[in-house]
Amino acid sequence: MTTTTAHAFDTAISLTDNGIGHHSAQTTPEFANMVGPFGGVTAAAIVRAIEQHPDRIGEPVALTVNYLAAVTDGDFDIAVRPVRTNRTNQHWTAEVTQEHGPTTTATAVFGLRRDAWSDTEATMPDAPDPESVAHTTLPGPVPWMRNYDMHYVAGGVPTEPAESASSTTTLWVRQRPARALDFAALSALADVFYPRVFLRRGRMLPAGTVSLTTYFHVDGTELAAQGTDYVLATAQAQRFARGYFDQAAQIWGRDGTLLATSHQIVYYKD
Amino acid sequence: MTTTTAHAFDTAISLTDNGIGHHSAQTTPEFANMVGPFGGVTAAAIVRAIEQHPDRIGEPVALTVNYLAAVTDGDFDIAVRPVRTNRTNQHWTAEVTQEHGPTTTATAVFGLRRDAWSDTEATMPDAPDPESVAHTTLPGPVPWMRNYDMHYVAGGVPTEPAESASSTTTLWVRQRPARALDFAALSALADVFYPRVFLRRGRMLPAGTVSLTTYFHVDGTELAAQGTDYVLATAQAQRFARGYFDQAAQIWGRDGTLLATSHQIVYYKD
Repeated sequence: MTTTTAHAFDTAISLTDNGIGHHSAQTTPEFANMVGPFGGVTAAAIVRAIEQHPDRIGEPVALTVNYLAAVTDGDFDIAVRPVRTNRTNQHWTAEVTQEHGPTTTATAVFGLRRDAWSDTEATMPDAPDPESVAHTTLPGPVPWMRNYDMHYVAGGVPTEPAESASSTTTLWVRQRPARALDFAALSALADVFYPRVFLRRGRMLPAGTVSLTTYFHVDGTELAAQGTDYVLATAQAQRFARGYFDQAAQIWGRDGTLLATSHQIVYYKD
Repeated sequence: MTTTTAHAFDTAISLTDNGIGHHSAQTTPEFANMVGPFGGVTAAAIVRAIEQHPDRIGEPVALTVNYLAAVTDGDFDIAVRPVRTNRTNQHWTAEVTQEHGPTTTATAVFGLRRDAWSDTEATMPDAPDPESVAHTTLPGPVPWMRNYDMHYVAGGVPTEPAESASSTTTLWVRQRPARALDFAALSALADVFYPRVFLRRGRMLPAGTVSLTTYFHVDGTELAAQGTDYVLATAQAQRFARGYFDQAAQIWGRDGTLLATSHQIVYYKD
């Protein structure tokens, strides 16, 4: 007899159908953050809900997720709506709610890619192979991080109080256990960085993502070609301004494909 | 007798109250683009609608605007809704509609800033004073551009067919006639760049913003301190990928204040 167990990530974004565009789901302890679940897994669940809609065309091009309030442990509902369907793209809105009210809003653009002149202008950061970089186990009680193999190339989590002049973090990362990369997983990876303000200040302090936008630069076939391999994720802040800082991120395949670029604005208290 | 005439930008984002959170407005010929109005002025009208809501707290922190379909010349409606109000921030959704259906969706975060450790990590591009850089009048029938004084420092609009290895454009820009900078104007400035693919390919081709996200790094007092002066706007693409490219932008005050960072994903055909 063979028993197959679902990957913890698939369990975390597993949706029950409550009618077209309506789903219910449950938080899982594996993806818990300091307060509520990892924001990346909420983004992933929204992408999954749109992918499952019978009227959906194309694949993710853009996703914006707004974190209104912490999702509390337990049940949550996801409603997704195709607001406008054009010839080659489709615009969506989404809302996550719990008994205490709305916790998350989102908009998404799905689209069909076509042959067109293409070029990657950004440069992949230099990094030694992931196998040659030490694996980092993070201090503290952050369960969701255990679902990722993280090999920091630069800007690792500060372990002693020391300010840094740079907010740049670069790491090789993949799901743990290894799982083939898909759009849901890539949406979550965009939020895999610990808050940039920790690095600059050399310590943990209250911080949380307020809004996250990700642009996808590959189709499903190109994404699937990454298999279960590590991706190189890099992020930096441009400005910390009295309670909010931004983060600009890139996610690269090991083969040099720029898979996604992402941005977020983060609340902090210092 | 003195006659005062409203600035064309204020006319373009002038809203009629149709009940709390509901407004009607009209496109104006001054802000017409190739098809429909300049995307920046639609973003500005949404910001203005939220600012006018009686329950609004704080000032813009983040804004995402999705362009579903061209706004056709004439009347349009804007509906804005405060989805969740927290102690120091507030989350909004917005929708622009015309008789033919929804044309624009948006989400916004407004917030209150507080004293906190702050730092600008990005570096302002080197640029000579705007007064020493030639003013560029753009070729072709793009009315909205006449509302801006644009002095290109790098990456001006290609006037002859020649590809460029870089997609970077940097320009000094202000409203024409000069007008004090506010959040509505800054929201529009985030979309002031011509499409990056024109620069790379050395020619115009079909292109249009699909989704635009702007993060604001100043409060209203800091913004007002810019007065009617030029700001330095810079933008570049990271990847052009079979029909969609991204653009990352910064808007700097002449005094070195990073006012906003912005990102968009743009459809193109080549």
